[in-house]
Amino acid sequence: MAAPDDCPLCREDGGLLIARHDKFRIIRATGADAADFPACYRVIWNDHVAEWTDLAPPERGELMQAVIQVETVLRAQLRPTKVNLASLGNVVPHLHWHVIARYDWDSRWPAPVWAPAARERDEARLAKLIACLDTCDAAIAALTL
Amino acid sequence: MAAPDDCPLCREDGGLLIARHDKFRIIRATGADAADFPACYRVIWNDHVAEWTDLAPPERGELMQAVIQVETVLRAQLRPTKVNLASLGNVVPHLHWHVIARYDWDSRWPAPVWAPAARERDEARLAKLIACLDTCDAAIAALTL
Repeated sequence: MAAPDDCPLCREDGGLLIARHDKFRIIRATGADAADFPACYRVIWNDHVAEWTDLAPPERGELMQAVIQVETVLRAQLRPTKVNLASLGNVVPHLHWHVIARYDWDSRWPAPVWAPAARERDEARLAKLIACLDTCDAAIAALTL
Repeated sequence: MAAPDDCPLCREDGGLLIARHDKFRIIRATGADAADFPACYRVIWNDHVAEWTDLAPPERGELMQAVIQVETVLRAQLRPTKVNLASLGNVVPHLHWHVIARYDWDSRWPAPVWAPAARERDEARLAKLIACLDTCDAAIAALTL
């Protein structure tokens, strides 16, 4: 599909670039997106494609392998209570997978990150988590994908 | 992992059973879960496993193939504005994939289904969508998986 002029994921990386590959890139969310969930990564298909089933099977395999490897790194580095995976794309219909480390102390737990906040942010625990992200980013950047 | 006594997806199908396979089942959400999003299907791994990366690669391949086929049926039968895919499991950490047909008239659009409602339900459009579900269910039940 041709890239629509107004697609932000065609124009920009969409966050802090962690790894750029031929067909996809891995970014970490920053700014307001990451305030409550700093360990929020996205694996973004470079071409403008809307749905998971718009990809040919080999490409889907490649992209899912990246999602799997990112989840593996997050589990090893950040020891989350749960990993959340999602491909929604309602606002930006450009194929991307969210890979998010969730904790039983986070502001929405156990609801999805998109639910209203259930409690205040735990700034001390968030700071500890943020301190681990450079190492996590480096492990993702080092993946052979 | 042994099934914990309190896991609802170990005890029950988890919705209207559409197809039962050796390693997974496909259900359609019913009741309150489905009031705003009647075309909400779940592909549920039968064994109690929490994370996507807890599955061995061949099993992950089988389960993702089912997700892909369900998305394909939903697109063909229900013509959604967008398909949403998610594996969260914060409340019930028993591996399941949500495959949800979303519409630009639904009560949360374009937010995720877990966000607060943005508008009233469109009962007339919901009724038309619900009228298509028997055919959609039958197409999913007929899949070779």
